[in-house]
Amino acid sequence: MTIKLYCFGESGNSYKAALALELSGLDWEPVFVDFFKGAARSADYLEQVNNMGEVPVLVDGDIRLSQSGAIQQYISDKSGKFAGSDADKYEVLRWVLWDNHKLSSQAGMTRFLMNFLPEDKRPQEVIGFMLGRLKGAYTTLNAHLEGRDWIVGDGLTNADISCCGYLLYPEPFGFDRAEWPNIDRWLKNIEQLDGWKHPYDLMPGHPSDRA
Amino acid sequence: MTIKLYCFGESGNSYKAALALELSGLDWEPVFVDFFKGAARSADYLEQVNNMGEVPVLVDGDIRLSQSGAIQQYISDKSGKFAGSDADKYEVLRWVLWDNHKLSSQAGMTRFLMNFLPEDKRPQEVIGFMLGRLKGAYTTLNAHLEGRDWIVGDGLTNADISCCGYLLYPEPFGFDRAEWPNIDRWLKNIEQLDGWKHPYDLMPGHPSDRA
Repeated sequence: MTIKLYCFGESGNSYKAALALELSGLDWEPVFVDFFKGAARSADYLEQVNNMGEVPVLVDGDIRLSQSGAIQQYISDKSGKFAGSDADKYEVLRWVLWDNHKLSSQAGMTRFLMNFLPEDKRPQEVIGFMLGRLKGAYTTLNAHLEGRDWIVGDGLTNADISCCGYLLYPEPFGFDRAEWPNIDRWLKNIEQLDGWKHPYDLMPGHPSDRA
Repeated sequence: MTIKLYCFGESGNSYKAALALELSGLDWEPVFVDFFKGAARSADYLEQVNNMGEVPVLVDGDIRLSQSGAIQQYISDKSGKFAGSDADKYEVLRWVLWDNHKLSSQAGMTRFLMNFLPEDKRPQEVIGFMLGRLKGAYTTLNAHLEGRDWIVGDGLTNADISCCGYLLYPEPFGFDRAEWPNIDRWLKNIEQLDGWKHPYDLMPGHPSDRA
Protein backbone atom coordinates (compact mmCIF):
# COMPACT_ATOMS: atom_id res chain seq x y z
CA MET A 1 0.00 0.00 0.00
CA THR A 2 1.31 3.46 -0.88
CA ILE A 3 2.15 5.61 2.13
CA LYS A 4 0.47 9.02 2.01
CA LEU A 5 2.14 12.12 3.38
CA TYR A 6 -0.06 15.16 3.96
CA CYS A 7 2.36 18.01 3.35
CA PHE A 8 3.11 21.26 1.53
CA GLY A 9 6.27 22.52 -0.12
CA GLU A 10 6.97 25.48 2.14
CA SER A 11 6.98 23.32 5.28
CA GLY A 12 10.42 22.29 6.50
CA ASN A 13 8.82 19.87 8.92
CA SER A 14 7.02 18.25 5.98
CA TYR A 15 10.32 18.14 4.12
CA LYS A 16 11.94 16.07 6.88
CA ALA A 17 9.26 13.41 6.44
CA ALA A 18 9.21 13.62 2.64
CA LEU A 19 12.99 13.41 2.34
CA ALA A 20 13.12 10.41 4.68
CA LEU A 21 10.40 8.68 2.62
CA GLU A 22 12.10 9.50 -0.68
CA LEU A 23 15.55 8.34 0.41
CA SER A 24 14.20 5.25 2.18
CA GLY A 25 12.91 3.73 -1.05
CA LEU A 26 9.47 3.17 0.47
CA ASP A 27 6.48 3.66 -1.83
CA TRP A 28 4.91 7.03 -0.97
CA GLU A 29 2.98 9.94 -2.41
CA PRO A 30 2.40 13.48 -1.21
CA VAL A 31 -1.11 14.77 -0.53
CA PHE A 32 -1.14 18.55 -0.83
CA VAL A 33 -2.44 20.52 2.15
CA ASP A 34 -3.24 24.06 1.09
CA PHE A 35 -1.99 25.40 4.39
CA PHE A 36 -1.98 29.07 3.42
CA LYS A 37 -5.66 28.85 2.52
CA GLY A 38 -6.41 27.35 5.94
CA ALA A 39 -6.80 23.74 4.78
CA ALA A 40 -5.16 22.35 7.94
CA ARG A 41 -7.83 24.10 10.00
CA SER A 42 -10.80 22.93 7.92
CA ALA A 43 -13.43 20.76 9.58
CA ASP A 44 -12.61 17.91 7.18
CA TYR A 45 -8.90 17.99 7.96
CA LEU A 46 -9.43 18.21 11.72
CA GLU A 47 -11.88 15.33 11.62
CA GLN A 48 -10.27 13.05 9.05
CA VAL A 49 -6.54 13.76 9.10
CA ASN A 50 -5.34 15.38 12.35
CA ASN A 51 -7.44 16.86 15.12
CA MET A 52 -4.65 19.26 16.10
CA GLY A 53 -4.34 20.75 12.61
CA GLU A 54 -0.77 19.51 12.29
CA VAL A 55 1.17 19.12 9.05
CA PRO A 56 2.87 16.81 8.11
CA VAL A 57 0.78 13.71 8.75
CA LEU A 58 1.77 10.25 7.53
CA VAL A 59 -0.91 7.67 6.79
CA ASP A 60 0.12 4.06 6.22
CA GLY A 61 -2.90 1.77 6.39
CA ASP A 62 -4.21 2.08 9.94
CA ILE A 63 -1.17 4.05 11.10
CA ARG A 64 -1.64 7.80 11.30
CA LEU A 65 1.19 9.90 12.70
CA SER A 66 2.06 13.54 13.12
CA GLN A 67 5.25 15.28 14.30
CA SER A 68 8.07 14.91 11.83
CA GLY A 69 10.38 13.27 14.38
CA ALA A 70 7.86 10.53 15.12
CA ILE A 71 7.25 10.04 11.39
CA GLN A 72 11.01 9.77 10.83
CA GLN A 73 11.24 7.10 13.55
CA TYR A 74 8.40 5.17 11.91
CA ILE A 75 10.11 5.34 8.51
CA SER A 76 13.36 4.13 10.10
CA ASP A 77 11.62 1.22 11.79
CA LYS A 78 9.89 0.25 8.56
CA SER A 79 12.83 0.71 6.17
CA GLY A 80 15.75 -0.09 8.46
CA LYS A 81 17.42 3.18 7.47
CA PHE A 82 18.63 6.42 9.10
CA ALA A 83 18.62 5.11 12.70
CA GLY A 84 22.42 5.01 12.92
CA SER A 85 24.24 2.27 14.78
CA ASP A 86 22.71 0.87 17.95
CA ALA A 87 25.44 2.59 19.98
CA ASP A 88 24.44 5.91 18.41
CA LYS A 89 20.69 5.72 18.97
CA TYR A 90 20.58 8.20 21.86
CA GLU A 91 22.87 10.55 20.01
CA VAL A 92 20.54 10.51 16.99
CA LEU A 93 17.52 11.12 19.21
CA ARG A 94 19.37 13.87 21.04
CA TRP A 95 19.98 15.78 17.79
CA VAL A 96 16.42 15.28 16.55
CA LEU A 97 15.22 16.77 19.84
CA TRP A 98 17.80 19.55 19.72
CA ASP A 99 16.57 20.41 16.24
CA ASN A 100 12.92 20.45 17.31
CA HIS A 101 13.79 22.46 20.39
CA LYS A 102 16.42 24.92 19.21
CA LEU A 103 16.63 24.99 15.43
CA SER A 104 13.58 24.06 13.34
CA SER A 105 10.96 25.42 15.72
CA GLN A 106 12.61 28.82 15.64
CA ALA A 107 13.72 28.76 12.00
CA GLY A 108 10.26 27.75 10.83
CA MET A 109 8.55 30.48 12.80
CA THR A 110 11.09 33.15 11.85
CA ARG A 111 10.91 32.23 8.16
CA PHE A 112 7.12 32.42 8.36
CA LEU A 113 7.18 35.84 10.01
CA MET A 114 9.76 37.24 7.58
CA ASN A 115 8.30 35.87 4.36
CA PHE A 116 4.75 34.62 4.60
CA LEU A 117 3.12 37.35 6.67
CA PRO A 118 2.06 40.58 4.95
CA GLU A 119 4.89 43.11 5.24
CA ASP A 120 2.96 45.45 7.51
CA LYS A 121 2.17 42.63 9.95
CA ARG A 122 5.70 41.42 10.58
CA PRO A 123 6.64 41.83 14.26
CA GLN A 124 10.11 43.31 13.96
CA GLU A 125 11.13 42.96 17.63
CA VAL A 126 10.14 39.29 17.59
CA ILE A 127 12.03 38.71 14.35
CA GLY A 128 15.15 40.41 15.73
CA PHE A 129 14.98 38.37 18.91
CA MET A 130 14.54 35.11 16.99
CA LEU A 131 17.42 35.92 14.63
CA GLY A 132 19.67 36.23 17.68
CA ARG A 133 18.58 32.87 19.05
CA LEU A 134 18.95 31.23 15.65
CA LYS A 135 22.49 32.51 15.36
CA GLY A 136 23.23 30.58 18.55
CA ALA A 137 21.78 27.42 16.97
CA TYR A 138 23.81 27.85 13.76
CA THR A 139 26.94 28.38 15.86
CA THR A 140 26.30 25.14 17.76
CA LEU A 141 25.65 23.11 14.62
CA ASN A 142 28.60 24.58 12.72
CA ALA A 143 30.95 23.83 15.63
CA HIS A 144 29.65 20.27 15.91
CA LEU A 145 30.23 19.64 12.19
CA GLU A 146 33.89 20.64 12.38
CA GLY A 147 35.74 17.60 11.06
CA ARG A 148 32.51 15.65 10.59
CA ASP A 149 30.67 14.71 7.39
CA TRP A 150 27.47 13.78 9.23
CA ILE A 151 25.96 14.84 12.54
CA VAL A 152 26.18 11.36 14.10
CA GLY A 153 28.43 8.51 12.98
CA ASP A 154 29.62 8.08 9.42
CA GLY A 155 26.46 8.27 7.37
CA LEU A 156 23.08 9.94 7.00
CA THR A 157 20.79 9.56 10.02
CA ASN A 158 17.55 11.10 11.22
CA ALA A 159 19.70 13.71 12.96
CA ASP A 160 20.79 15.07 9.56
CA ILE A 161 17.32 14.79 8.04
CA SER A 162 15.84 16.71 10.96
CA CYS A 163 18.45 19.45 11.19
CA CYS A 164 18.50 20.18 7.44
CA GLY A 165 14.72 20.59 7.33
CA TYR A 166 14.67 24.37 6.99
CA LEU A 167 18.26 25.06 5.93
CA LEU A 168 17.81 24.27 2.24
CA TYR A 169 15.07 26.83 1.62
CA PRO A 170 15.87 30.00 -0.29
CA GLU A 171 13.65 32.43 1.66
CA PRO A 172 15.56 34.60 4.15
CA PHE A 173 15.47 33.76 7.84
CA GLY A 174 18.92 34.86 8.91
CA PHE A 175 20.77 31.85 7.53
CA ASP A 176 23.44 32.32 4.89
CA ARG A 177 25.32 29.12 4.07
CA ALA A 178 28.44 31.06 3.11
CA GLU A 179 28.82 32.22 6.74
CA TRP A 180 28.83 28.68 8.12
CA PRO A 181 31.42 26.62 6.23
CA ASN A 182 30.88 23.34 8.10
CA ILE A 183 27.11 23.53 7.73
CA ASP A 184 27.56 24.38 4.05
CA ARG A 185 29.84 21.38 3.48
CA TRP A 186 27.40 19.08 5.32
CA LEU A 187 24.43 20.38 3.31
CA LYS A 188 26.41 19.61 0.13
CA ASN A 189 26.85 16.05 1.40
CA ILE A 190 23.09 15.80 1.73
CA GLU A 191 22.45 17.36 -1.69
CA GLN A 192 24.80 14.83 -3.27
CA LEU A 193 22.96 11.80 -1.89
CA ASP A 194 21.53 9.49 -4.52
CA GLY A 195 17.87 10.44 -4.96
CA TRP A 196 18.07 13.71 -3.02
CA LYS A 197 15.53 16.35 -4.01
CA HIS A 198 15.03 19.96 -3.03
CA PRO A 199 11.91 20.62 -0.92
CA TYR A 200 10.16 22.43 -3.76
CA ASP A 201 10.86 19.51 -6.11
CA LEU A 202 9.70 16.89 -3.64
CA MET A 203 6.38 18.32 -2.46
CA PRO A 204 3.54 20.30 -4.04
CA GLY A 205 3.16 23.93 -3.06
CA HIS A 206 5.52 26.86 -3.71
CA PRO A 207 5.49 30.53 -2.70
CA SER A 208 5.02 31.52 -6.37
CA ASP A 209 1.64 29.76 -6.32
CA ARG A 210 0.38 32.62 -4.19
CA ALA A 211 2.06 35.45 -6.11
CA MET B 1 26.77 3.21 40.36
CA THR B 2 24.74 6.31 41.19
CA ILE B 3 23.47 8.19 38.14
CA LYS B 4 24.39 11.89 38.21
CA LEU B 5 22.10 14.55 36.80
CA TYR B 6 23.58 17.98 36.16
CA CYS B 7 20.61 20.25 36.75
CA PHE B 8 19.18 23.28 38.53
CA GLY B 9 15.83 23.86 40.15
CA GLU B 10 14.49 26.56 37.84
CA SER B 11 14.95 24.40 34.73
CA GLY B 12 11.82 22.63 33.53
CA ASN B 13 13.91 20.58 31.15
CA SER B 14 16.02 19.44 34.11
CA TYR B 15 12.81 18.64 35.97
CA LYS B 16 11.67 16.23 33.25
CA ALA B 17 14.86 14.22 33.73
CA ALA B 18 14.86 14.50 37.52
CA LEU B 19 11.20 13.49 37.83
CA ALA B 20 11.73 10.49 35.54
CA LEU B 21 14.75 9.42 37.61
CA GLU B 22 12.92 9.90 40.92
CA LEU B 23 9.79 8.00 39.85
CA SER B 24 11.79 5.25 38.11
CA GLY B 25 13.36 4.08 41.37
CA LEU B 26 16.84 4.26 39.84
CA ASP B 27 19.64 5.42 42.14
CA TRP B 28 20.48 9.03 41.24
CA GLU B 29 21.73 12.31 42.63
CA PRO B 30 21.54 15.88 41.38
CA VAL B 31 24.69 17.88 40.65
CA PHE B 32 23.91 21.58 40.90
CA VAL B 33 24.77 23.74 37.90
CA ASP B 34 24.78 27.40 38.92
CA PHE B 35 23.26 28.39 35.59
CA PHE B 36 22.46 31.99 36.49
CA LYS B 37 26.09 32.56 37.41
CA GLY B 38 27.18 31.21 34.02
CA ALA B 39 28.34 27.78 35.23
CA ALA B 40 27.04 26.03 32.09
CA ARG B 41 29.29 28.29 29.99
CA SER B 42 32.41 27.81 32.09
CA ALA B 43 35.47 26.23 30.47
CA ASP B 44 35.27 23.31 32.89
CA TYR B 45 31.63 22.57 32.11
CA LEU B 46 32.10 22.85 28.36
CA GLU B 47 35.11 20.55 28.50
CA GLN B 48 34.03 18.02 31.09
CA VAL B 49 30.23 17.91 31.03
CA ASN B 50 28.71 19.19 27.77
CA ASN B 51 30.45 21.05 24.97
CA MET B 52 27.21 22.79 23.97
CA GLY B 53 26.57 24.21 27.45
CA GLU B 54 23.35 22.25 27.78
CA VAL B 55 21.55 21.49 31.04
CA PRO B 56 20.37 18.87 32.02
CA VAL B 57 23.08 16.29 31.39
CA LEU B 58 22.86 12.72 32.67
CA VAL B 59 26.03 10.79 33.44
CA ASP B 60 25.79 7.05 34.06
CA GLY B 61 29.24 5.45 33.94
CA ASP B 62 30.45 5.98 30.38
CA ILE B 63 27.07 7.24 29.19
CA ARG B 64 26.72 11.02 28.94
CA LEU B 65 23.50 12.42 27.52
CA SER B 66 21.86 15.80 27.03
CA GLN B 67 18.38 16.79 25.81
CA SER B 68 15.69 15.87 28.32
CA GLY B 69 13.79 13.72 25.79
CA ALA B 70 16.86 11.59 25.08
CA ILE B 71 17.55 11.29 28.82
CA GLN B 72 13.94 10.23 29.38
CA GLN B 73 14.29 7.53 26.72
CA TYR B 74 17.47 6.28 28.39
CA ILE B 75 15.75 6.12 31.79
CA SER B 76 12.85 4.22 30.22
CA ASP B 77 15.17 1.73 28.55
CA LYS B 78 17.07 1.20 31.81
CA SER B 79 14.10 1.05 34.19
CA GLY B 80 11.42 -0.39 31.91
CA LYS B 81 9.08 2.47 32.87
CA PHE B 82 7.21 5.34 31.19
CA ALA B 83 7.49 4.02 27.61
CA GLY B 84 3.82 3.09 27.38
CA SER B 85 2.63 0.00 25.57
CA ASP B 86 4.42 -1.10 22.44
CA ALA B 87 1.39 -0.02 20.38
CA ASP B 88 1.64 3.46 21.90
CA LYS B 89 5.36 4.05 21.33
CA TYR B 90 4.95 6.46 18.40
CA GLU B 91 2.21 8.31 20.23
CA VAL B 92 4.48 8.80 23.24
CA LEU B 93 7.30 10.02 21.00
CA ARG B 94 4.91 12.30 19.14
CA TRP B 95 3.89 14.05 22.35
CA VAL B 96 7.47 14.35 23.60
CA LEU B 97 8.32 16.02 20.29
CA TRP B 98 5.21 18.19 20.36
CA ASP B 99 6.21 19.34 23.83
CA ASN B 100 9.78 20.14 22.74
CA HIS B 101 8.52 21.87 19.63
CA LYS B 102 5.43 23.74 20.79
CA LEU B 103 5.17 23.81 24.57
CA SER B 104 8.36 23.57 26.67
CA SER B 105 10.63 25.43 24.27
CA GLN B 106 8.29 28.41 24.30
CA ALA B 107 7.21 28.17 27.95
CA GLY B 108 10.80 27.94 29.13
CA MET B 109 11.89 30.94 27.12
CA THR B 110 8.84 33.03 28.04
CA ARG B 111 9.22 32.23 31.75
CA PHE B 112 12.87 33.21 31.52
CA LEU B 113 12.08 36.52 29.82
CA MET B 114 9.24 37.35 32.23
CA ASN B 115 10.97 36.39 35.47
CA PHE B 116 14.71 35.93 35.24
CA LEU B 117 15.71 38.92 33.13
CA PRO B 118 16.05 42.33 34.82
CA GLU B 119 12.74 44.18 34.50
CA ASP B 120 14.14 46.86 32.20
CA LYS B 121 15.50 44.24 29.79
CA ARG B 122 12.32 42.28 29.16
CA PRO B 123 11.33 42.42 25.48
CA GLN B 124 7.61 43.12 25.75
CA GLU B 125 6.70 42.51 22.10
CA VAL B 126 8.46 39.15 22.19
CA ILE B 127 6.73 38.22 25.45
CA GLY B 128 3.32 39.18 24.06
CA PHE B 129 3.91 37.17 20.90
CA MET B 130 5.05 34.12 22.87
CA LEU B 131 2.07 34.33 25.22
CA GLY B 132 -0.20 34.10 22.18
CA ARG B 133 1.59 31.03 20.86
CA LEU B 134 1.59 29.41 24.27
CA LYS B 135 -2.15 29.89 24.55
CA GLY B 136 -2.46 27.80 21.40
CA ALA B 137 -0.38 25.05 23.01
CA TYR B 138 -2.46 25.08 26.22
CA THR B 139 -5.62 24.90 24.12
CA THR B 140 -4.30 21.85 22.26
CA LEU B 141 -3.23 20.04 25.44
CA ASN B 142 -6.42 20.87 27.32
CA ALA B 143 -8.56 19.59 24.43
CA HIS B 144 -6.53 16.39 24.19
CA LEU B 145 -6.97 15.71 27.92
CA GLU B 146 -10.76 15.90 27.74
CA GLY B 147 -11.90 12.55 29.11
CA ARG B 148 -8.33 11.36 29.60
CA ASP B 149 -6.32 10.88 32.80
CA TRP B 150 -3.01 10.63 30.97
CA ILE B 151 -1.75 11.94 27.62
CA VAL B 152 -1.22 8.48 26.13
CA GLY B 153 -2.82 5.23 27.30
CA ASP B 154 -3.90 4.61 30.88
CA GLY B 155 -0.84 5.50 32.91
CA LEU B 156 2.11 7.85 33.24
CA THR B 157 4.43 7.93 30.22
CA ASN B 158 7.26 10.12 29.00
CA ALA B 159 4.59 12.18 27.23
CA ASP B 160 3.24 13.33 30.60
CA ILE B 161 6.69 13.81 32.12
CA SER B 162 7.73 15.96 29.16
CA CYS B 163 4.59 18.09 28.91
CA CYS B 164 4.37 18.83 32.64
CA GLY B 165 7.98 20.04 32.75
CA TYR B 166 7.21 23.75 33.02
CA LEU B 167 3.56 23.68 34.08
CA LEU B 168 4.18 23.05 37.78
CA TYR B 169 6.31 26.15 38.35
CA PRO B 170 4.84 29.12 40.23
CA GLU B 171 6.48 31.93 38.23
CA PRO B 172 4.15 33.61 35.72
CA PHE B 173 4.42 32.74 32.03
CA GLY B 174 0.82 33.06 30.97
CA PHE B 175 -0.34 29.74 32.37
CA ASP B 176 -3.06 29.66 35.01
CA ARG B 177 -4.20 26.15 35.89
CA ALA B 178 -7.66 27.40 36.82
CA GLU B 179 -8.28 28.39 33.18
CA TRP B 180 -7.54 24.90 31.85
CA PRO B 181 -9.59 22.37 33.79
CA ASN B 182 -8.40 19.25 31.97
CA ILE B 183 -4.75 20.25 32.32
CA ASP B 184 -5.38 21.03 35.99
CA ARG B 185 -6.94 17.62 36.61
CA TRP B 186 -4.08 15.87 34.80
CA LEU B 187 -1.46 17.80 36.78
CA LYS B 188 -3.21 16.68 39.97
CA ASN B 189 -2.89 13.07 38.77
CA ILE B 190 0.84 13.65 38.43
CA GLU B 191 1.13 15.36 41.82
CA GLN B 192 -0.63 12.41 43.46
CA LEU B 193 1.82 9.83 42.12
CA ASP B 194 3.69 7.92 44.77
CA GLY B 195 7.07 9.64 45.19
CA TRP B 196 6.18 12.77 43.20
CA LYS B 197 8.10 15.90 44.14
CA HIS B 198 7.80 19.53 43.11
CA PRO B 199 10.72 20.81 40.98
CA TYR B 200 12.04 22.99 43.81
CA ASP B 201 11.98 20.03 46.21
CA LEU B 202 13.67 17.67 43.76
CA MET B 203 16.61 19.77 42.55
CA PRO B 204 18.96 22.33 44.12
CA GLY B 205 18.55 25.95 43.06
CA HIS B 206 15.61 28.32 43.69
CA PRO B 207 14.86 31.90 42.62
CA SER B 208 15.10 33.02 46.26
CA ASP B 209 18.79 32.02 46.24
CA ARG B 210 19.38 35.08 44.06
CA ALA B 211 17.15 37.49 45.97
